[in-house]
Amino acid sequence: MRQIEAMAVDRPGAGFRPHHYESGPLGPDEVDVQVTHAGVCHSDIGMIDDEYGISRYPVVAGHESVGVVVGLGSAVDSSQLRLGDRVGVGPIAGSCMRCVWCRSGRTQLCASRDDTVMRGDRGGFASHVRASSWQHVYRIPDEITSAEAAPLLCAGSTVFAPLLRHGVRPVDRVAVVGIGGLGHLAIQFMSRWGCHVTAVSGSAGKEEAALALGASAFLNSRDEGALGWVRGTFDLILSTVSADLPWDQYVDALRPGGTLSIVGLPAAAISVSPMSLLPQAKVVAGGVPGSIEDNRAMLDFAARHGVRPVVEIHSAGDADRALRSVREGTARYRAVIEM
Amino acid sequence: MRQIEAMAVDRPGAGFRPHHYESGPLGPDEVDVQVTHAGVCHSDIGMIDDEYGISRYPVVAGHESVGVVVGLGSAVDSSQLRLGDRVGVGPIAGSCMRCVWCRSGRTQLCASRDDTVMRGDRGGFASHVRASSWQHVYRIPDEITSAEAAPLLCAGSTVFAPLLRHGVRPVDRVAVVGIGGLGHLAIQFMSRWGCHVTAVSGSAGKEEAALALGASAFLNSRDEGALGWVRGTFDLILSTVSADLPWDQYVDALRPGGTLSIVGLPAAAISVSPMSLLPQAKVVAGGVPGSIEDNRAMLDFAARHGVRPVVEIHSAGDADRALRSVREGTARYRAVIEM
Repeated sequence: MRQIEAMAVDRPGAGFRPHHYESGPLGPDEVDVQVTHAGVCHSDIGMIDDEYGISRYPVVAGHESVGVVVGLGSAVDSSQLRLGDRVGVGPIAGSCMRCVWCRSGRTQLCASRDDTVMRGDRGGFASHVRASSWQHVYRIPDEITSAEAAPLLCAGSTVFAPLLRHGVRPVDRVAVVGIGGLGHLAIQFMSRWGCHVTAVSGSAGKEEAALALGASAFLNSRDEGALGWVRGTFDLILSTVSADLPWDQYVDALRPGGTLSIVGLPAAAISVSPMSLLPQAKVVAGGVPGSIEDNRAMLDFAARHGVRPVVEIHSAGDADRALRSVREGTARYRAVIEM
Repeated sequence: MRQIEAMAVDRPGAGFRPHHYESGPLGPDEVDVQVTHAGVCHSDIGMIDDEYGISRYPVVAGHESVGVVVGLGSAVDSSQLRLGDRVGVGPIAGSCMRCVWCRSGRTQLCASRDDTVMRGDRGGFASHVRASSWQHVYRIPDEITSAEAAPLLCAGSTVFAPLLRHGVRPVDRVAVVGIGGLGHLAIQFMSRWGCHVTAVSGSAGKEEAALALGASAFLNSRDEGALGWVRGTFDLILSTVSADLPWDQYVDALRPGGTLSIVGLPAAAISVSPMSLLPQAKVVAGGVPGSIEDNRAMLDFAARHGVRPVVEIHSAGDADRALRSVREGTARYRAVIEM
């Protein structure tokens, strides 16, 4: 039992207010983490502002929490997790570990997975966050600071998982659409993976940053006919934006057999002409964060290859500013609250 | 040089008329096949009726030709192809054998592939058809009659290739949408592959035939709420129809991580909600016929496992009836012209 001090929001568009709850007894597979750093993700804003129509107020969002293990259930494997470990809890705080998906290692597809951001007032913007299965608690490599680790847990996982899922090879040519919280990590991961990376953005001012992050080329999608110049070019295109893109033009920019992986959530239906999709056997795929093993591999890869989010750090007293920066899309590139 | 007697069509909707042309000299990689059996495919009707807006009349369609090798270019590998061999020439009569796709074995993606049905008056509804690269000429296994072999070259290839492309496993649950020329072969291939196959059709009268072909279950898509009953069921759904399906309902019928493979050409755009595609990492893929090696494997698999199209055979004098039967969708299940 623990008294938790959380940062709640009472209605769409509102700021934080203090909120307290009792954690309840710790179950055998559960882990309590005292949070030191909490990343702010677009889907936190989505839950806070009830964009998905499923929020129950007060909402305590937050699903990129890094901190220290302060409570371990009786069934936790002590060779893998100990009190005092520096760890992260991401968008999935647990899964059943019994279903076909968990048994086959695709834990992110578990139907009864524990989505951290959908737990009402039990999210990660708090003094502590509880993981419901210890397997979903990740030790942070020493090379990565806690502020940097936070955005890797959701943004990093989301853009790294497609590399594994679609068998991307270091000889492939890839494009990253959108240079924001997700995209600036995708450019780093894919360039370190060995790929030739084209960064695609409607903001000409982001070219320099994209090249510095590891992109080999920059395409301004607002240039007249820009997508026509890259027709038939990419083995994989990763769309990280929530805009409704001209999907046919992006499918046409794929090489034969190529994959358009969509990890940003557009508002409207994704519509593709059969003549863009069929004759060259192209693929449109939806993306989600990775499995437990995907995420362990992601953190290890990030540590070894210097993949680090660019973060703006806000103090807990300034947390409303962090919210605003993500809500308004001005964060460069990811906001983290120091709790 | 050879005088070719072909069956041409002069305008959309018309019947056949005799048409003659000189074959010209045989190039080193080319093969001449005297046609004994020619399958009629929906895309033949598409070219004959100028549905794609690219037809040049007179049109000699036909791209499922089976017959006997009567001419071999000087560079043909004689250990693989000899005069008198019983062979097939399908929708791809040649490819450059030099580009990245041909070099890597994905010959069906070659940008300068020789599409049999798009050669003006040089199609397969003729006394002879010429393959522009001998590697695209397939020896027909002894177990398969020539009339049966013809539809395998396009319809068979188109429904078999997704099994290889998407790594379908014999433990998977699959659905085949549409029980026609493509679908009745897909049901056979997938059931012999070891899968649990659900045949989906709006024609209740096709249930018995579907089960006889190897389906384990039948779903009448016109039954109120039918697709809701199979929500989250299939690892792969193969759509063989040209109808504009309720795509979201089919994507929802996939298991997490599942693939909707579209090999029938719908008229309108394929539109999928992001909330159907993204949260469970689903995939929508366009399909085309297989590569050279896919097709060799397909013919061998069909021979070993008794996969045979159900054909209605028409004499050359009755060829107009064969056209009509495919145009009107009454063929059960594939029309073949005996030349």
